[in-house]
Amino acid sequence: MNEYNTKPIPGFMELLPEEQIEFDRIKSIILDTYEQFGFTALDTPLIERKKTLLAKGGGETAKQVYSVENKNNVVDPSDNRDSELALRFDLTVPLARYVAEHFNDLSFPFRRCHVSRVYRGEKPQKGRFREFYQCDIDVIGRDQLSIRYDAEIPYIIYQIFKKLDLGKFTIRINNRKLFNGLLRYIDESVDFVEVLRVIDKVEKVSHDDFIFMLKNTGLNETAINTLQKFIQISGSAKDVLQDLKALNIEDELFLTGLEELETVSTLLLEMGVDPNYYTIDLSIVRGLDYYTGTVYETKLDDYQNIGSPCSGGRFDDLASYYTDEKLPGVGISIGLTRLFYQLRENGLINATHKTVAEAIVIPVGDENIKYSIRVSNDLRKKGIKVDTLLESMPFKKKMKYASKKDAMFTIIIGSEEEKSEEVALQYRKTGRFEKVRVSIDNLSDKVDDIRKELMAENEI
Amino acid sequence: MNEYNTKPIPGFMELLPEEQIEFDRIKSIILDTYEQFGFTALDTPLIERKKTLLAKGGGETAKQVYSVENKNNVVDPSDNRDSELALRFDLTVPLARYVAEHFNDLSFPFRRCHVSRVYRGEKPQKGRFREFYQCDIDVIGRDQLSIRYDAEIPYIIYQIFKKLDLGKFTIRINNRKLFNGLLRYIDESVDFVEVLRVIDKVEKVSHDDFIFMLKNTGLNETAINTLQKFIQISGSAKDVLQDLKALNIEDELFLTGLEELETVSTLLLEMGVDPNYYTIDLSIVRGLDYYTGTVYETKLDDYQNIGSPCSGGRFDDLASYYTDEKLPGVGISIGLTRLFYQLRENGLINATHKTVAEAIVIPVGDENIKYSIRVSNDLRKKGIKVDTLLESMPFKKKMKYASKKDAMFTIIIGSEEEKSEEVALQYRKTGRFEKVRVSIDNLSDKVDDIRKELMAENEI
Repeated sequence: MNEYNTKPIPGFMELLPEEQIEFDRIKSIILDTYEQFGFTALDTPLIERKKTLLAKGGGETAKQVYSVENKNNVVDPSDNRDSELALRFDLTVPLARYVAEHFNDLSFPFRRCHVSRVYRGEKPQKGRFREFYQCDIDVIGRDQLSIRYDAEIPYIIYQIFKKLDLGKFTIRINNRKLFNGLLRYIDESVDFVEVLRVIDKVEKVSHDDFIFMLKNTGLNETAINTLQKFIQISGSAKDVLQDLKALNIEDELFLTGLEELETVSTLLLEMGVDPNYYTIDLSIVRGLDYYTGTVYETKLDDYQNIGSPCSGGRFDDLASYYTDEKLPGVGISIGLTRLFYQLRENGLINATHKTVAEAIVIPVGDENIKYSIRVSNDLRKKGIKVDTLLESMPFKKKMKYASKKDAMFTIIIGSEEEKSEEVALQYRKTGRFEKVRVSIDNLSDKVDDIRKELMAENEI
Repeated sequence: MNEYNTKPIPGFMELLPEEQIEFDRIKSIILDTYEQFGFTALDTPLIERKKTLLAKGGGETAKQVYSVENKNNVVDPSDNRDSELALRFDLTVPLARYVAEHFNDLSFPFRRCHVSRVYRGEKPQKGRFREFYQCDIDVIGRDQLSIRYDAEIPYIIYQIFKKLDLGKFTIRINNRKLFNGLLRYIDESVDFVEVLRVIDKVEKVSHDDFIFMLKNTGLNETAINTLQKFIQISGSAKDVLQDLKALNIEDELFLTGLEELETVSTLLLEMGVDPNYYTIDLSIVRGLDYYTGTVYETKLDDYQNIGSPCSGGRFDDLASYYTDEKLPGVGISIGLTRLFYQLRENGLINATHKTVAEAIVIPVGDENIKYSIRVSNDLRKKGIKVDTLLESMPFKKKMKYASKKDAMFTIIIGSEEEKSEEVALQYRKTGRFEKVRVSIDNLSDKVDDIRKELMAENEI
């Protein structure tokens, strides 16, 4: 019997029903908000041609990719490499392929969201997943895309994290053009990517090490001073923009970045985003070879151990490997599986109900089943989710079933209740156990009312 | 540039946004109905240990399974076979593994739904998919499970297909015990599985061939006569049950099957299922080595070319390979990808809107953007999905964007509208193009009202 291992594979999250309900609730908040802003959900295949998937080239990604093989599924025998299949490792490459392939059927700016799984064969490590959900949105322009969309993205992040109710959070915004312009201005000969790599470590190494590393890139002292002044700029968005202007950097790229950041900042205010919830943070870098303008990270203020659950930015060209069309865009990704894991580790997942049903209907005896079915149907018509216990078992065992599942309501129907066209309705309110008799004519309204009350109570 | 093939792999469905919206709408109807009956959604990993996945043994399934490999992901180096990974080919085997693994954390009867993808490396063929969605529900009992759950399942099918609005349909119900009991009664020596295989072909071969094939199984003439009489029984559920009783088969298994079928039939009436929507069809067999009692198929009456989109049945023991616990259950699966494909082939997919947004808000000039954002936010607060066009483009191009996306509403905001705190609202009603001016205070109510009207109109 124990010949077969039934444990989920390490690095693959498997949830109990009560956890899954919470996971799905968070997923719905994200997806619903995306759709509220008119992002249409796509759902491309999980399997792609390996050659197409790895167009951008090898490195760590190629090592982490899962190969997929089936002898019946030889795609193109004339091209061996094209026949190799693999699981996608993100949702951006499939988006690029999709937009290139269906270009003529799409209208631009193209807005899509995608909430689905991706696969990376990472070394096993606590809190690292090999299968995980990403929740992406991107706006893709044809030839051009207004900087205003760069403001819409953090506005959506704001809406989502407000609804997720995980306490105060901060959206950190930067623009890569500032940095690149500054570097070009202070020392055109230096290796930009190398300097960016050092800057990315500012929070992780000591000050002396930081300066040492900067010197190693070849920057002279004046340059390092300007750079340091730049990185240390902080405060409200308004202050930061003022300090940046005061640097008097006469570089076109820098000034474009400044202007873009100012536009984003002004629009965020107009959109109604509380200025306490975002900062301009000049130390944010992100994906060195991908983002070209605005970049975002998010921080849960009360849970500093949780890394940025939501990051992204502006890119110049989405699909250069697959099409000659120029497709600038801006987008973000929420790493849902990891976020859920971290919230659970921090005791923030309140997984109580073991069923999606809001009411368990319990017929006391077999003779009460017909009436119980009628009551259940009435409730369902009102949009209440109902599990009718149809098994014949001792009453005590039936009540144990209800108590284990822990739905919001237990509805008990015996012959006495049936005769008077009533039910016994049980629920917990502010910790106390309530038990009332309700006529079936009033039941669905009553349940609907109490449900609203209880949900409001939980939100306090 | 054309070095990379961007086409989806054959056998993998990839949809345009307007199709995806319809696909997701159907998926939501199925999932919402499952949840309405208290089936909690599970979401197990797509990848399983190959050895565990194929516990039941080889054959066609082993050939169709996709192997998955990544060098970093060696699960258990001490057991080579246990390190081999594969994509799941259905949702039932993962359920069995899940219930065995988490047995002590679940309460029974355990009700779960699962709407997700599975993978089979079939030979390429029109309308056959290698990646497809299955939408499953199962009720799993511990040691026992009441026959009443066998009635709840077709009740749920009934609710779903009513909502899907694909015209008249018929749920065909049978019970395998009838057949097995009958065979045992008329000729105990015959190979049951062989006879069942022939019976399964009754609609596909000529009458003479059918009799010939039956004779080949070793049945004598009297037995074949009884068998034929049995298969030909048809009519309303009530008539069929009467005719079955009239056969006077004195076999315990047969009589149990008859009683079960009668219970299911009676309960379906009590649940309020229109008797025109189901039949007892004694020719339904299904999955020879899996189902042991009630079996279901579904037929769309107006589209006979569409095979059963929803099938399932009762099984004696879910997880015998993984646990010693006896876990009887009953369930169904809807093959969503295939159903969607067939509906589309039959012209039944009405994919018009290219965006999930219900309203496109168009600022005439850049100076109208602030006001447009305000209007968009008001609408979103009312639950209306809004895409605000933030790109700067000529007005004509903006209107083309709206017309291509084809949302329900287009809302145009110029300086004139802004001054009088109004918007220009456009929509199509009974084919005609309507254009009205609405004050922003009334806009979200007005849009909400018209939306309800338009949705009712589409349902006629």
